[in-house]
Amino acid sequence: MLAAETEFNRSIGDLSGRMPKVLRIGCFEPFGALFMPEMLRSYLDSVGDVEIDLVEADQIQLQERLVAGQIDLAILYDIGPIGIDSVTRVCKVPAHAVLNADDPLATRDGIWLAELAARPLVLLDLPHTATYLLTLFDVLAKRPEVRFRTRSYETVRSAVATGFGMAILKMRPIGRATADGDEIVRKPIFDELPPPTLIVADMYGSAKPLFVRVFIEMFHRFFTAVGPGGFSVTTPEREPFLLVARDG
Amino acid sequence: MLAAETEFNRSIGDLSGRMPKVLRIGCFEPFGALFMPEMLRSYLDSVGDVEIDLVEADQIQLQERLVAGQIDLAILYDIGPIGIDSVTRVCKVPAHAVLNADDPLATRDGIWLAELAARPLVLLDLPHTATYLLTLFDVLAKRPEVRFRTRSYETVRSAVATGFGMAILKMRPIGRATADGDEIVRKPIFDELPPPTLIVADMYGSAKPLFVRVFIEMFHRFFTAVGPGGFSVTTPEREPFLLVARDG
Repeated sequence: MLAAETEFNRSIGDLSGRMPKVLRIGCFEPFGALFMPEMLRSYLDSVGDVEIDLVEADQIQLQERLVAGQIDLAILYDIGPIGIDSVTRVCKVPAHAVLNADDPLATRDGIWLAELAARPLVLLDLPHTATYLLTLFDVLAKRPEVRFRTRSYETVRSAVATGFGMAILKMRPIGRATADGDEIVRKPIFDELPPPTLIVADMYGSAKPLFVRVFIEMFHRFFTAVGPGGFSVTTPEREPFLLVARDG
Repeated sequence: MLAAETEFNRSIGDLSGRMPKVLRIGCFEPFGALFMPEMLRSYLDSVGDVEIDLVEADQIQLQERLVAGQIDLAILYDIGPIGIDSVTRVCKVPAHAVLNADDPLATRDGIWLAELAARPLVLLDLPHTATYLLTLFDVLAKRPEVRFRTRSYETVRSAVATGFGMAILKMRPIGRATADGDEIVRKPIFDELPPPTLIVADMYGSAKPLFVRVFIEMFHRFFTAVGPGGFSVTTPEREPFLLVARDG
């Protein structure tokens, strides 16, 4: 363990001449504002300045761009088909409910999907995301009426704040500039749902270049430091199981 | 004037049976969270409930989708080529500076582009948007070093909050769930810049269906009610010229 830490620190000290000038990272669209700048800040504070080219795309586009060599890394969920073999699992992010603060359910400790199904839905309409979400309802409750469709996490939040209905999201915002307003409330869902896992995918397999290894290590440290209470909305008894062990 | 108002109210009262069940609206990506839910809320409060299918896309995709009949209306800026003839101009939205609160320039009343050019840039890298912005710098100052590229308005804001540099944006957030945090400050730019105009484009020309006419009217009312101080960041002497007269 100590040897690994020493090796890691040596690698970093050694990195200045071996970093690409531009770091080309793909991430699932909502992650761009939710945590990427914070995470990249801590990465650059350690390894020195590089230009960041952040490619925000959907789960399908990210895998295509990775295979085409347009990005060095992709950060996504393991929902839907993942055709990339070289994957590092970071943490599980359970779905939670996003309610207008005026909703009577907003005072509760948590909510059942069957209760949410009676409300109109503001749907994050991205490939696989919408399927994952509607499948949960189909399995555990009746499907809610879709009232508002959008590709944007931020628009989902605005639409719930403006009274269009409830939403189901996974990640909670971590970035400094995207805090929720007073008009929305996030609550755990009591049902046992399969939580998507946040993964870092690359095309290098066991031959990862140093900057990729360092990025993945920093990424894992970032989510460990933020902790389940910072990135997820879930019940207290589930929180201890959300972080994936470093070699997991 | 009174006659027009009466006619408008009669049209609305008459509208219930003539609304499409799904309103398919395209908007320039950042507008989704910045004001669309608020605006749509006031629209639906007047005309009754319909399902909203909001298609957030870039300036080029929006025009393609409008021509292909996939959306009824597109809300965009008049930057870059606009190949649609049926356009309603709503308001002008001058570019402004977005600074980290720790930046010494953040205490000033306004800023010159030449001062900003010395800082690293967080670039909203969408088609035409990036070109518009870099062209401003090329004309009036030297071009800043791009430090962070993203397609997302929200990520721009997060990256500035996290210390990656300054940004230039146009619209200020109007929606309830997307207020700026304490880490960023918005300031007018003193240079005389060509302000993009917010437009509503459709394919109907003078034969607009009632729901389209009502939407455009409501859209104009919404921005009039919000006012230049609510949607823009500019100098006091420029504010009176930002709203486009209804028949302008």
